[in-house]
Amino acid sequence: MRRLNRFTASLTIASALLLARDMVQAQSWQPPSDAQRCPSKWGPGDQRGSGNHMKPENVLRATRLIRSGEVIELGHVLNAAMPFFGARHFDVHTKRTFMNPQSNRRGSNEEVVVGEIGQVGTQFDGFAHQTIGDSMYNCYKVSEASTRTGFEKLGIENVGALITRGVLIDIAGLKGVQTLPDTYEITVQDIEQALSKQKLKLQPGDAVILNTGWGTLWGKDNIRYAKGCPGIGIAAAEWLAKQDPMLVGADNIGVEVNPNPDAALSLPIHQIMIVVNGIHLLENMKLDQLVAKRIQEFALIVQPLKIQGGTGSTVAPIAIH
Amino acid sequence: MRRLNRFTASLTIASALLLARDMVQAQSWQPPSDAQRCPSKWGPGDQRGSGNHMKPENVLRATRLIRSGEVIELGHVLNAAMPFFGARHFDVHTKRTFMNPQSNRRGSNEEVVVGEIGQVGTQFDGFAHQTIGDSMYNCYKVSEASTRTGFEKLGIENVGALITRGVLIDIAGLKGVQTLPDTYEITVQDIEQALSKQKLKLQPGDAVILNTGWGTLWGKDNIRYAKGCPGIGIAAAEWLAKQDPMLVGADNIGVEVNPNPDAALSLPIHQIMIVVNGIHLLENMKLDQLVAKRIQEFALIVQPLKIQGGTGSTVAPIAIH
Amino acid sequence: MRRLNRFTASLTIASALLLARDMVQAQSWQPPSDAQRCPSKWGPGDQRGSGNHMKPENVLRATRLIRSGEVIELGHVLNAAMPFFGARHFDVHTKRTFMNPQSNRRGSNEEVVVGEIGQVGTQFDGFAHQTIGDSMYNCYKVSEASTRTGFEKLGIENVGALITRGVLIDIAGLKGVQTLPDTYEITVQDIEQALSKQKLKLQPGDAVILNTGWGTLWGKDNIRYAKGCPGIGIAAAEWLAKQDPMLVGADNIGVEVNPNPDAALSLPIHQIMIVVNGIHLLENMKLDQLVAKRIQEFALIVQPLKIQGGTGSTVAPIAIH
Amino acid sequence: MRRLNRFTASLTIASALLLARDMVQAQSWQPPSDAQRCPSKWGPGDQRGSGNHMKPENVLRATRLIRSGEVIELGHVLNAAMPFFGARHFDVHTKRTFMNPQSNRRGSNEEVVVGEIGQVGTQFDGFAHQTIGDSMYNCYKVSEASTRTGFEKLGIENVGALITRGVLIDIAGLKGVQTLPDTYEITVQDIEQALSKQKLKLQPGDAVILNTGWGTLWGKDNIRYAKGCPGIGIAAAEWLAKQDPMLVGADNIGVEVNPNPDAALSLPIHQIMIVVNGIHLLENMKLDQLVAKRIQEFALIVQPLKIQGGTGSTVAPIAIH
Repeated sequence: MRRLNRFTASLTIASALLLARDMVQAQSWQPPSDAQRCPSKWGPGDQRGSGNHMKPENVLRATRLIRSGEVIELGHVLNAAMPFFGARHFDVHTKRTFMNPQSNRRGSNEEVVVGEIGQVGTQFDGFAHQTIGDSMYNCYKVSEASTRTGFEKLGIENVGALITRGVLIDIAGLKGVQTLPDTYEITVQDIEQALSKQKLKLQPGDAVILNTGWGTLWGKDNIRYAKGCPGIGIAAAEWLAKQDPMLVGADNIGVEVNPNPDAALSLPIHQIMIVVNGIHLLENMKLDQLVAKRIQEFALIVQPLKIQGGTGSTVAPIAIH
Repeated sequence: MRRLNRFTASLTIASALLLARDMVQAQSWQPPSDAQRCPSKWGPGDQRGSGNHMKPENVLRATRLIRSGEVIELGHVLNAAMPFFGARHFDVHTKRTFMNPQSNRRGSNEEVVVGEIGQVGTQFDGFAHQTIGDSMYNCYKVSEASTRTGFEKLGIENVGALITRGVLIDIAGLKGVQTLPDTYEITVQDIEQALSKQKLKLQPGDAVILNTGWGTLWGKDNIRYAKGCPGIGIAAAEWLAKQDPMLVGADNIGVEVNPNPDAALSLPIHQIMIVVNGIHLLENMKLDQLVAKRIQEFALIVQPLKIQGGTGSTVAPIAIH
Repeated sequence: MRRLNRFTASLTIASALLLARDMVQAQSWQPPSDAQRCPSKWGPGDQRGSGNHMKPENVLRATRLIRSGEVIELGHVLNAAMPFFGARHFDVHTKRTFMNPQSNRRGSNEEVVVGEIGQVGTQFDGFAHQTIGDSMYNCYKVSEASTRTGFEKLGIENVGALITRGVLIDIAGLKGVQTLPDTYEITVQDIEQALSKQKLKLQPGDAVILNTGWGTLWGKDNIRYAKGCPGIGIAAAEWLAKQDPMLVGADNIGVEVNPNPDAALSLPIHQIMIVVNGIHLLENMKLDQLVAKRIQEFALIVQPLKIQGGTGSTVAPIAIH
Repeated sequence: MRRLNRFTASLTIASALLLARDMVQAQSWQPPSDAQRCPSKWGPGDQRGSGNHMKPENVLRATRLIRSGEVIELGHVLNAAMPFFGARHFDVHTKRTFMNPQSNRRGSNEEVVVGEIGQVGTQFDGFAHQTIGDSMYNCYKVSEASTRTGFEKLGIENVGALITRGVLIDIAGLKGVQTLPDTYEITVQDIEQALSKQKLKLQPGDAVILNTGWGTLWGKDNIRYAKGCPGIGIAAAEWLAKQDPMLVGADNIGVEVNPNPDAALSLPIHQIMIVVNGIHLLENMKLDQLVAKRIQEFALIVQPLKIQGGTGSTVAPIAIH
C-alpha cells in the first residue's frame, strides 16, 4: 500500500512533466503522408507487414524456447458479459436440439453467433482495421479495397498462424503495482527499465507483450475497463516499432494509453503500428498466469480465424515454454 | 484413370459385401445406454474427454517433431461461399468506416459476423454438440445443461488449445485416387494398410488426420461436397477410439461416411466419438498441402475459440514439422 | 402531489387487502389442464383464437368510427436504446453505400438488422409465444410444432392485419395520476369504474387498450421500465377474457402486473390470455397522444409482420378516429 | 395461348421500336444535378416527400372507399425461401423454450431474426435507400447523414402509417397475359390504356399499384423472379411522378423494368421516384387476390416499422374495400 502511494505520488510529478512533454510532442506529431510512408519497408504491394517475419527460422527460434511443455492460455472466455469497445456485441443463441429421426436418436446442438468477431474479446488486429484518412497500410485505399462483405486487400485471411518468441514486459511489476493508474502512459524508459530488470533483450520478429495489470479488471469492472486504460504512448510506440516486432500485445483494450494525453489525437498508436508500420496488435490478453508464474520468454502462438476480408479476429492465443 | 476404374470396379463388389456386412452390423449396433457408457473412462464428472491428453509431456512429444520450422495451414478461408451443412451461414457485414473527429484522421473499420461459428468452415467439435437422446458425453443431460446462451457443461471454452502429434493417414493415397468415391466407407483394414505403407504407428493422444481427398471439392463443387462424403464407418470408428486419440480429423464435412451404409443410422460416428468416447472431431480440414508435400507426422496445433457454452468452434489449425 | 399521496396512502391499505385476497386466490389459481381448456371455444384445430373476430362486419364496426381522419401512431421508434425484456436486442448495422458502376451514379443503402423481432419494441404476441408446460393454445404441443426456424402451428404469419374498434381504458386517468405505482394490480373494479367514467362499454371483438402511464418511462428510465410494472392481475384478466376481445394492449412491457402479487406465479396473465383463451396481447404501446387528446374510441389497425412460424411481431399500430 | 402468341409477336415489333426510342432517350436522360432538383417541391428541409399527402382529408378519401369491409392481404410470408435481391437474407432462429421455474409452468418462446429487414420480402422504400452520387432526397448527403447504426436524416421512422386511396392498374390484364414478358418496359400508353379500360383516374396522393403478374413466380421460380423483371421505364416513371402519388407499388422486385433497356443505367426509376421526387416504392407485393377479385380501387394501408434511421421496412400492407 505504501509502495502504491509512493508510486502514485511520484506519478503525480511525473505526470506533470509528461504532460508538458506531450503537449510539445503532440504539436509535432502528425500522421505521415502517403508519400512519406509508402511503400512500406516490406516493399510495394506488400500486405503482410510484420507477418513477413513468419519464416521457418523464426518458428524454430520460438519452439527452441519450449522446455517444460507447459501451455498458458492467453485468451479470455467469450460471452455477452465481456467488456466491449463502443457498441460491439458478442451474442450466442443456442438453437433447439435437432433430434434426427433415425433409430440411433442422435441429437445435434449448435448455436448462431452474432458479433464483431474481428474486434471483440481477446483480439488480433489485421491491417484493414485502421486508416489515416482513406489510406491503410502500404497506402491501400479503403475506397478501393472495401466491399460490403470484406476488404479485397489486407484481409485477415492472409495472415496465417503466427509463431514467434514472446517476451512479456511487466510494466506493472516494474512499478510494483498490480494495475497501472487509469491513463498512465508507458514510456520508453519504462520499457527499457523493465527489460533490464528482467534481463531480456528484444529481437526482430518478437511478440512484445506488455503487462499493464489492466486485465485484472476484465469481467470485474467492465465499465472502467472499457472507458480508458494505461498503455504505451507515441514515444514508446515509435521506439517499439523500431525494434521490428511481429506484434505488440497487452492486457488492455487497445495496447495504447487511452485517451491519449494529447486530446487532439484519437488512438494514434493504432495508426503508428498498423497503418504506418504494418505491425499487428493483440488486445485484451489474459496475462494473469504468465505474470503469476513469472514466465517472460516463451513461444507465442496465435491462429487468427481466416475471415475473408476481415479486419481482425477474435483469438485464443497461447504461450508455451 | 485405369487405376480409378479398377478401383471403382472392385469397389462395386466390395460395396455389395460391405452392404451385406453392414446390414448385419446395423442390427447389432445401437448406441450404448447411459449405464453402459458412464462414467466415461476419464472418470465421473469429467468434461475434457480426450482433451485430458493435453499434458506437458504430450506437448513435448509433439514439439520434438518440429525440425524444419515449416508451418502448413490446415484451415479453409471463411466466407459465404463455403459449403455448409444444412442451413448454416457465415456472413460478414463490413461496417461503414468510422472516421474519428480528431485531427489525426483515424478511420476505423470493423465487421459484424453472423453464423453458426461453432459449426462452419474448418471446424472443431466440442462435446455439447452431440447427444444420444437427451444425454451427452459422460451422461450430462441437454435438458439440464442447456440455456438459450450456451451449455453450462461441456462448453467449448473448457477445451483450450490442443497441441499434439499429428498423423496424416492418406486413404486416398493408399487407393491411388485423388478422391475416394462419394460414399466410400473407410475400413479398419484401409487404415491399417495405410499406416503400414506410411511406416507409422498410432500412439495414445495423437491427432489422427484422414485424407479422403474430398476436400478437393471445397469451393469447387459445394453441392456435392455437402451432400454426402466418404469417411470412416462404425468399425473404423470403434477401432480408432481404441487407439485413444486426442482427436480425429478429416477433409470432409463430418469425418464419417455420409450417409451411413445403414440407412437406419444418422451419423453414428458422431455418437461413437463425441458422446460415447469423448473424442473431438476436426472437420472440413484443408489437407492438400500436407498431402502434396507428403508430410505425415507433425505437431498439430489448434486453438478453439473460447465461446462460453459453445458446441464447437471454427478454427484455423496448423501442422508444423 | 397531494392527490398522489392520498392515492398512495389508500393504496397501501388496498394493497394489504389485495395481498390477502391474492394469497387466497393464488392458492386456488392454477393453469387449467389440457382437458379443461381444449378444444378452445373456437373449436378443435383452431389456430386463430380471437383473430376469428376479423370479419368484414367487424372491420365496418371499426371504420364507422373514423370521422376526423386523424391518425395517431401507437408504436415507439425502434433502436438499441429501447428498454428490453431480459437479454433481447435490436441492432441496426447500416451497410456501406454500394455505388453501382453505371453512369447514373446510383448509390444504394441498406442495413442488416439483428434482434428478437417478434418480441421487442411495440410488439404483438402470437400464440406460439407462450405455453403451459409443453402445451400451447388449443393444446398444440411445442415438442411437435417447433423447429429451429419457427413453429409449424400458430405462427404469426397466420394472423393477418387486425382492424377493430379500439377502446382506451385510462386507469391512470381514473386514479388521477400520470403513472400507476410500480407494481399496482389493476382490478376488475378499476376497469369497470374507468369505463363508467368514460361512458363506454366493451363489445366482443374490441381491442381493449389500457393506459397505465408506465409508457412515460420509455426511453427515460429504461431500467425501471423493464424491471416491473403496473398492470392487470388474474381477476381482471379473467373478467376481460369473458368480454371476448380481439386483443388486449397496454403501455407496459407485458400488459399484466409484474411481478405478480403471488410470487409463485410467473406472468400468469400471459397464460390466461394467450394459452387458455387465444387472445392476442399488444405490448409497449405508445399511448401518450391518445391520452392527451382524450381519444378513447377509435379504429385500431395493426399489421403484424408475416414471419413464418414466428411467435410475435414488432409492430407500428395506429388509431384512427 | 393464341392471345399470348399474338401479344408476343406484336411485342417483338414493339420491342424493336421501343429499343430505338430508348436508345435516343437514354442518351438524353441523366440524373438531375443537386441544383436542378433541390429543394424538392415539398420545400427546403423536407424529409417526408410524398408522405406529406398523409393528411386527415386524404385518410377520409381512402376510408370512404370501404364498403364491404373485406380485407385483402398484400404481403408475402417472410422466410428464408423467399427470392432475395443480391445477398440479402431473412433468417429466423427459434430459441429454446425458456421454462420459468414458478409453479404455473410458463414456457416462453421467441426467435432471433437476422436480415436486411428494410429491404426483404414485401417491402417499403424510405428515402435513405437511394442516392445520386452522395446525394439523397432533397439533397441530404450520405456522407453527412449516415452512421453505423442508421441515417440521421430521412430515416424510415419518420414516415408513419400511410392510408390512402389505392388504385390497381392491371397491365398484365390489359395485355391479356398472366405475366408480362421478362424485361417488358411498361409505357405511359400502357398505363393510360389500362386506366381507361378500368374506368379509373389517378388523383394526387394515390397509391398506384401496378400488376405485372411477375408475383406469380414468387416462391415458385425465385431465380427468375430475382434475376430481372418487367416494370415501368423512365417515361412511365416520369409520367407517374407528375400524377403526384403517395407511393408506387408493384408485384416485382423493384417496380421498374430490370435491367433497364439502356444498359448504361442502373435502376434509374429508383432515382426518379425516391431521390428526385421523394415518392415511396412498395415492392414484392402479393397482388393475386386483388387481381382475381378485380378489386381495383380500395383503401391501402401500410405500416412501416419505425426502424430508427432505417432505409426501408419489410411490411404487411392491406387493401380494404
